[in-house]
Amino acid sequence: MNEVAASRRQHGPGASRNYPKGERRRAQIIEAAFTAFGTVGYRNASMLQLAAACGVSRAGLLHHFPTKESLLEAVLEQRERRDDERFFGTGEATRDGLEYFASMLRLVAHNQDHPGIVSLFALLSSEASAPDHPAHPYFVARYERARCAMQSAIDDLAHRGLLRPHVDPVGLSVDLLALIDGLQIQWLLSPHDIDMPERLRARLRDIIKVELP
Amino acid sequence: MNEVAASRRQHGPGASRNYPKGERRRAQIIEAAFTAFGTVGYRNASMLQLAAACGVSRAGLLHHFPTKESLLEAVLEQRERRDDERFFGTGEATRDGLEYFASMLRLVAHNQDHPGIVSLFALLSSEASAPDHPAHPYFVARYERARCAMQSAIDDLAHRGLLRPHVDPVGLSVDLLALIDGLQIQWLLSPHDIDMPERLRARLRDIIKVELP
Repeated sequence: MNEVAASRRQHGPGASRNYPKGERRRAQIIEAAFTAFGTVGYRNASMLQLAAACGVSRAGLLHHFPTKESLLEAVLEQRERRDDERFFGTGEATRDGLEYFASMLRLVAHNQDHPGIVSLFALLSSEASAPDHPAHPYFVARYERARCAMQSAIDDLAHRGLLRPHVDPVGLSVDLLALIDGLQIQWLLSPHDIDMPERLRARLRDIIKVELP
Repeated sequence: MNEVAASRRQHGPGASRNYPKGERRRAQIIEAAFTAFGTVGYRNASMLQLAAACGVSRAGLLHHFPTKESLLEAVLEQRERRDDERFFGTGEATRDGLEYFASMLRLVAHNQDHPGIVSLFALLSSEASAPDHPAHPYFVARYERARCAMQSAIDDLAHRGLLRPHVDPVGLSVDLLALIDGLQIQWLLSPHDIDMPERLRARLRDIIKVELP
């Protein structure tokens, strides 16, 4: 479990009143927040408008999420947990480099069908570079974890002799994560001109000796 | 001149009253907007707060920039013009591929000393992916121009036999622009861990046969 999830489960309201209706409402609020944060950004999203979009009162919203920060944490935590479950199994960094990059390709292909997710993370990760942004520690830690997991995968490939001879594995995780993020920006602006999984696959073909599934 | 500059010179107030005091004030407002847009984003920046930060009245601000959109255009146009003048000479895409990438390295090194610029573009380019954002057309066109200029530089290198044998030049401009953008996100979050010009230089070394100055 990541630190955001831990924080939510410790402090979050609703955790102690785990009945279906409350859970459905909670999920509905997270969904609306997801859309709002991904469209106008976190700072510009309004709790009042979110409440209205979900058909709840301000008090009803605050029952589930007493602060805007707690709602942001819930959105980020849910997203990361879902991605981990769907693409990386247990959420632990897989040790098999080929499996890791095959999963990464599937994740990027999945994202290309879900512009809302991409837009949310593109906008929030930029906004959160301000040290006073409530998601700043989350994004700093998220990228550290991502670099670490990817570098393990690259080291595994290097160890097995699966990297092409011209490839320098040092710092490669920084570059590949940057490529993925940067492709998102161009794709969001020109979705018909940019094919994210195709570009990532081409780059991985230039790095790894065997073709990924 | 790009389309934003053209639009400003055609419609912008202040252009017809080009006296030093007005120009100084105009420059001061652009500077304040630059900081605000790069910190809280365009949507969240307030014209009233901007006026206060510059010590002008709301009417004084509106004399120079009748809308928030016109101020955004002025900020973006000034940034791009300065970068073009400083790093790419006349603003036309240079035909010499080595010169182009040497300039790009200098630009990225310059940006690493100016987090405000990086943060402005990272945040605005994400925000502007929403089709109703006033800077949406600007950013779509900006990336198209950037891909086109970089692809010309790559084609020049290919033509002169300066690309390493493993390099596929098709789509490489998309990847390299993505790398530059993605490095900015990681660097803004962890400035002490990420060295943008070093990473770009390493990538270019893997692509181009000769060392860039």
